[in-house]
Amino acid sequence: MTGEAGDKGAQQCQPLMSVCYTDDPEDEGQLKKVGTEQNKSPPGRFGRNKFRFLSPQGEKFLALHVMEDWMILVLLAVITAFLSWAMEYGIELGLHTTLWLFEVAHSNVFLQYLAWVSIPVLLICFSAGFTYLVGPQAAGSGIPEIKTIVKGGMVKDHLSLNTLVAKLVGLTCALGSGMPLGKESPFVHIGGICAVQLNRLATFLGGVKERDSLTPELLVIGSAVGIAACFGSPVGGLLYSIEVASSFLMVKNYWKGYFAATISAFVFRLLPVWSGQFETITPLFHTNYRLEFPYELSELLSFCILGVLSGLASAFLVFLTGTMVRFIRGQSRFAKFLAKTRLVYPALVTFVIATLTFPPGFGQFMAGELTQRETLEAFFDNYTWSTHLTEDHFDHSDHSVAWKHPYVSVFVTLTISVVMKFFMSAVAISMPVPCGAFVPAFVIGAGLGRLVGEVTAVVIPPGVHANATTYAVVPGSYAVAGAAAMSGASTHTISTAMIVFELTGQISYIFPTIFCVFVANMVSQSLQPSLYETLIRIRKLPYPSELSWDHPPKSNVQVKDFMLKDLRYLNLRSTYRYLRDLLLTDNLKTFPLVKSTESMILLGSVERPQLESLLAQQLSHPRVKELGKQTSTDSGEDESQKDSSDKPSFSTKPHKKERGSQDSQVPLKSLACADSAAVVEVDIDEKDTLTTKGVQTVEWEEQQLDEQINFNNCKIDPASIQLMEHTSLPKVINIFSMMGLDQAYVTSVGQLVGLVTRQELYKAIEGVVKVHEITTHPPLTSFRDNRGSRRVTDTPEATELTHLLGDESGPSHRAEPDDQ
Amino acid sequence: MTGEAGDKGAQQCQPLMSVCYTDDPEDEGQLKKVGTEQNKSPPGRFGRNKFRFLSPQGEKFLALHVMEDWMILVLLAVITAFLSWAMEYGIELGLHTTLWLFEVAHSNVFLQYLAWVSIPVLLICFSAGFTYLVGPQAAGSGIPEIKTIVKGGMVKDHLSLNTLVAKLVGLTCALGSGMPLGKESPFVHIGGICAVQLNRLATFLGGVKERDSLTPELLVIGSAVGIAACFGSPVGGLLYSIEVASSFLMVKNYWKGYFAATISAFVFRLLPVWSGQFETITPLFHTNYRLEFPYELSELLSFCILGVLSGLASAFLVFLTGTMVRFIRGQSRFAKFLAKTRLVYPALVTFVIATLTFPPGFGQFMAGELTQRETLEAFFDNYTWSTHLTEDHFDHSDHSVAWKHPYVSVFVTLTISVVMKFFMSAVAISMPVPCGAFVPAFVIGAGLGRLVGEVTAVVIPPGVHANATTYAVVPGSYAVAGAAAMSGASTHTISTAMIVFELTGQISYIFPTIFCVFVANMVSQSLQPSLYETLIRIRKLPYPSELSWDHPPKSNVQVKDFMLKDLRYLNLRSTYRYLRDLLLTDNLKTFPLVKSTESMILLGSVERPQLESLLAQQLSHPRVKELGKQTSTDSGEDESQKDSSDKPSFSTKPHKKERGSQDSQVPLKSLACADSAAVVEVDIDEKDTLTTKGVQTVEWEEQQLDEQINFNNCKIDPASIQLMEHTSLPKVINIFSMMGLDQAYVTSVGQLVGLVTRQELYKAIEGVVKVHEITTHPPLTSFRDNRGSRRVTDTPEATELTHLLGDESGPSHRAEPDDQ
Repeated sequence: MTGEAGDKGAQQCQPLMSVCYTDDPEDEGQLKKVGTEQNKSPPGRFGRNKFRFLSPQGEKFLALHVMEDWMILVLLAVITAFLSWAMEYGIELGLHTTLWLFEVAHSNVFLQYLAWVSIPVLLICFSAGFTYLVGPQAAGSGIPEIKTIVKGGMVKDHLSLNTLVAKLVGLTCALGSGMPLGKESPFVHIGGICAVQLNRLATFLGGVKERDSLTPELLVIGSAVGIAACFGSPVGGLLYSIEVASSFLMVKNYWKGYFAATISAFVFRLLPVWSGQFETITPLFHTNYRLEFPYELSELLSFCILGVLSGLASAFLVFLTGTMVRFIRGQSRFAKFLAKTRLVYPALVTFVIATLTFPPGFGQFMAGELTQRETLEAFFDNYTWSTHLTEDHFDHSDHSVAWKHPYVSVFVTLTISVVMKFFMSAVAISMPVPCGAFVPAFVIGAGLGRLVGEVTAVVIPPGVHANATTYAVVPGSYAVAGAAAMSGASTHTISTAMIVFELTGQISYIFPTIFCVFVANMVSQSLQPSLYETLIRIRKLPYPSELSWDHPPKSNVQVKDFMLKDLRYLNLRSTYRYLRDLLLTDNLKTFPLVKSTESMILLGSVERPQLESLLAQQLSHPRVKELGKQTSTDSGEDESQKDSSDKPSFSTKPHKKERGSQDSQVPLKSLACADSAAVVEVDIDEKDTLTTKGVQTVEWEEQQLDEQINFNNCKIDPASIQLMEHTSLPKVINIFSMMGLDQAYVTSVGQLVGLVTRQELYKAIEGVVKVHEITTHPPLTSFRDNRGSRRVTDTPEATELTHLLGDESGPSHRAEPDDQ
Repeated sequence: MTGEAGDKGAQQCQPLMSVCYTDDPEDEGQLKKVGTEQNKSPPGRFGRNKFRFLSPQGEKFLALHVMEDWMILVLLAVITAFLSWAMEYGIELGLHTTLWLFEVAHSNVFLQYLAWVSIPVLLICFSAGFTYLVGPQAAGSGIPEIKTIVKGGMVKDHLSLNTLVAKLVGLTCALGSGMPLGKESPFVHIGGICAVQLNRLATFLGGVKERDSLTPELLVIGSAVGIAACFGSPVGGLLYSIEVASSFLMVKNYWKGYFAATISAFVFRLLPVWSGQFETITPLFHTNYRLEFPYELSELLSFCILGVLSGLASAFLVFLTGTMVRFIRGQSRFAKFLAKTRLVYPALVTFVIATLTFPPGFGQFMAGELTQRETLEAFFDNYTWSTHLTEDHFDHSDHSVAWKHPYVSVFVTLTISVVMKFFMSAVAISMPVPCGAFVPAFVIGAGLGRLVGEVTAVVIPPGVHANATTYAVVPGSYAVAGAAAMSGASTHTISTAMIVFELTGQISYIFPTIFCVFVANMVSQSLQPSLYETLIRIRKLPYPSELSWDHPPKSNVQVKDFMLKDLRYLNLRSTYRYLRDLLLTDNLKTFPLVKSTESMILLGSVERPQLESLLAQQLSHPRVKELGKQTSTDSGEDESQKDSSDKPSFSTKPHKKERGSQDSQVPLKSLACADSAAVVEVDIDEKDTLTTKGVQTVEWEEQQLDEQINFNNCKIDPASIQLMEHTSLPKVINIFSMMGLDQAYVTSVGQLVGLVTRQELYKAIEGVVKVHEITTHPPLTSFRDNRGSRRVTDTPEATELTHLLGDESGPSHRAEPDDQ
């Protein structure tokens, strides 16, 4: 740290910046009127008049009202819903083309096979290629990355617009191929990107400075909107996104998320009505189970068995997917060959899966001709297949006919299709295209549930109940519960129960479904980490896993290991010259203020605009100063506000130096601060009132610059949240995310020793992840969190005195006089 | 602050404590074996062997496993559900008695009237009297107080066991009277009490120290369980409780709440099945609306109109209730008379309401003979009353017949009943009995919805839709949406939508209901604060309203205004004598450690057991010390843990001084610390090994006490979160609640200046509430939170330098040499 004395020595130690330090009075001071808003903008953006076509009133209205949160939320919801609906059309087109070619070639089985295989292979190859070229970050589901970003890590390029485009096009093609892939997880990603990009637009239009600390909040809302736009499930979508991405929720954001998700789900279901597809708004997978006597109490046992099976299956699915992805990213010769020839692997996988599902071939045993949607509709239907498919008056309009086979029983075809879907999904997910594993798990779970339901229907004989009505088992309800359980267990969430209620439009099976999901989660969580956590581990994402306070941290990374130590600061005796140099060379948004260079006691921090205003005031001509004083005395109170609006402002642009004419006479509301490298801009229409600055002004300025800064009218933020050198990384992550901080100063026994911004935090997290294996704490673990553990370490950060005092102290220190 | 030098002068300044300062070696040192766990217990509780009947293994098992969180949650859920179910029986008994007497006296109208009026009056009077005598805090709903406690305020005696008893008995009687009162809000309170009391039991059994910071979390879970046990709605209950009580939610607690609420709702619905009341588990208000084509798109307009009406009605209801409660608590002569004669007011109100609902009288126009439950069942039924009640083959088994009147149309009776219920509810809620306003609002909303639905059914003609089926309007669905809207709007929540889905077992009307709730909330929130906030204002509860960071604080209460200034601390040169005196006189759980008395630089805090162990080590006899060293060398690492387990421990009991025999020779695992007022206890079976201490030991002890404390083996918590003198109250509340703190030190430029514990915080909040009117920020306000507002104050706490440095600094300070 150079300190106060370093304002002369800075030229040597920062050669790159030294051009800015020439005190040449010949430099051009280009003046421009700087409004209030621009005053607060980060450097490089101010001075731009964004709405030249608008009147000032219009601009103000736009900034104040149109870009309010709720407008953005509605926009986000509508855009996401529209994207989802449009994608459905694209997917339908792909699926339809395959089926159409398949039917056209009905005379020749080979041609049929060619049609059945070629279109999916082409689509998947296009998807993989497009994704690779436009936005490689779009491959996969995107939820692991969203989780990482929300928890404080950073994934480069994950929320950019080209990733959005790649995700949209790639996903449409991938799903259009008919492979067992999901739309839901990518839509979490899409919703997240839309939210962040819309917020970026709004902050740009509103002239507010962008805050990194808002990103987690935006991502959670975006995720909720994404799921709602996919399943038409506002509440379930919101809860799922909170559970999967966040570790806490502000009730304020709950309102926002609820609102946006509802709008999104509504628009997503409204668009098909408007396009004439439906008569009215219906759930995506509408069910018609009976409302009276939905289930017998003894059936809860079957549901629990289904829960156990789903849990086991999802743990195995996670294991299998993990193994596949590890193999593909591995070091074997085959893996390297696949990595080199990018399109071979997806083409191969698609070829194999399409061959397996070929309806005249093996596909006849596993309902291969059905799309994912049709499969789900069949699983959720209201019949008991074991009796329904053998009936004489069999209605061939529903999809369950696909499981009817002349030679084998429906139980066999059902089992085959579930097992095959299981393995096909595990393999398909590992393709480098935008795709999710949620829906495949959902479909497998639904199949498993249908199987358990059909068996239960045979095992439990229907009894005569109230009103002398016989109520049989509804196997479809098992399919619904199984879908929720399997998708919940593989992602370690419980809100999937809520999603299926909204998805099917029925909530009668609330207790069986929730129990099923709970049991499945317990089984799965005790066997495997969640799918997303597995992928986080494999991809080595900077996921801060040790977030829980109760667990003693495994890595002992502390603030002092990653904080920004070489920090520039102001002290009470700093001169205006030092301040000017500081503003010109440092891009920080706030500067720390210490008591003195010797004591380094942190007093607080001052925002850049405040300092710019201080410097401008000091450098403004006495005449202007007097005028300024008059104005401020007239208006009386609220002087500090005036400072940043009516008073002359000083704006700096580092790295930019122009020589030319000097303008110094200043109009009332503007400012003469034509300094060496400081470029102050003024509107063109006011330029003619400015005249050239004389030599004595330069001298006067030099004099002014040597004065000590008067901080009395300066607002100082007392830096309420300070970090200590020995604060552990998990605690820092927690403090940053809970308090919504962008930066925090580090003090040691009251002295400023460093700064931690989100950048430092990202790097620290990445560093820890590189060294240690990620150990994740799924929610149920923390739910089962043992009270006994609290007993051992009440203050996990407690340290020994020698560590706390560092080298300067110790046993010997105590005998010495205190250094005060 | 007396500081280090004050250990002699303390006798003068703290006369009450001076008895503890006599260094008389004649004092009794009663010894007792102190285990590891007790070592961490707060003073006054240690040394008690809680499970004498258990083996050490059994005790450990109990502490580690049986009292795990999930066990407590199951216990909480089952107990609350059972209480709710048992209460239903009590209520039924009360209602049945009234009706039975009414029917027995069918020959004489006067006798009928007497029966109809007397039982309710008696029940309400008993309820009011019992509540007043057993637990006055039980009166009212309890949610305002829960809100206050969760947000950081303190309400005395609100979570005690006698309040629970008063609430249970009082509520049963109040609801048994048939008055328009609710069960839901009091059950939030009951669930909260159960959660806190069970946790207290668990911490006692587990030997963990109780943490105040856990209370909010427990209350939210308890509230969720309470609502779930009342409505059988786990998800809605959880969301509602989060929304109404908390301002943020940890996902960890979401799991806990979800789990507990599900178990609770399930048990609540299972108990009627077990008792033979139902065949299987059903929703509380089971509906049977059609699943295909639930509503026409144009009906959304009607739902929005219903939303507006509900919003207006709920705002008026809140206003009316507020006016009534204000009048009752007011200063008028009548109000004073009522306050003096406690039972007159409830008796009067009950008499008037019972008279109005008397079925042969005015009650015939407002379905007066129906209970609240029957009324709701009727409102939610599947008929269109305007046509159904005029049909010839009219089925008299359902409750809608109550609105059939020979002379006036069903629209008139419906309107009368809604209006009458509205006014009766507003008055009834103000009675000093345990009761809630949620259910009354719910019933009014249902009635309003039925009215709008019936009108819509007349206005919108049924069209022919898909499959050539005519789908008419379902007025019952309007009743459901209206109930959600009215209850949501009066409490400013949106999760009521979720509650009605679970309550009716149908989710087909998800979009109309959510929109209706949203519209109603918007209308209501722009007109009135929520019901709970109104009551908080009237009762002047210490509710910290200015929690939002974005709003500039209205009261400028800062940490320095309420922190504990007269703080005792340790410094690096403190002697053991000073430490002993400190432990004897102060009850704090942790003590601050500063660098030196002059600098006052805060190094961190040390826990009491650590200090007790330090002192014990110093005062243990050299022979024992050697033995202790041997033991610790044998076991190698983890010495600090050993400190608190195997090594001799020192326990202090302030305010207690006994003189008698001296015991000093110490067994290996016990401790000789027979000091003046320090009472150290030892098991009886080890007492006989102790012999009397000689004079030279006393001298040696005195010598030991004069040594400086060796903090080297002491774990020091670096106090990662420190408050500044200028931190504002809202921010402190936020930091405490988000970080789950129990206390935080206040530093000014690195120097320790004070301490804030939850006690100080409570007092500060109370103080602010007394001075300022409470201004509450309902969720929608923060949801609509204007982006523009952020622009004005980016750092709302920013202050001026002179304030920051206090008197010691200022403009003049800058010229002086720094005080370092």
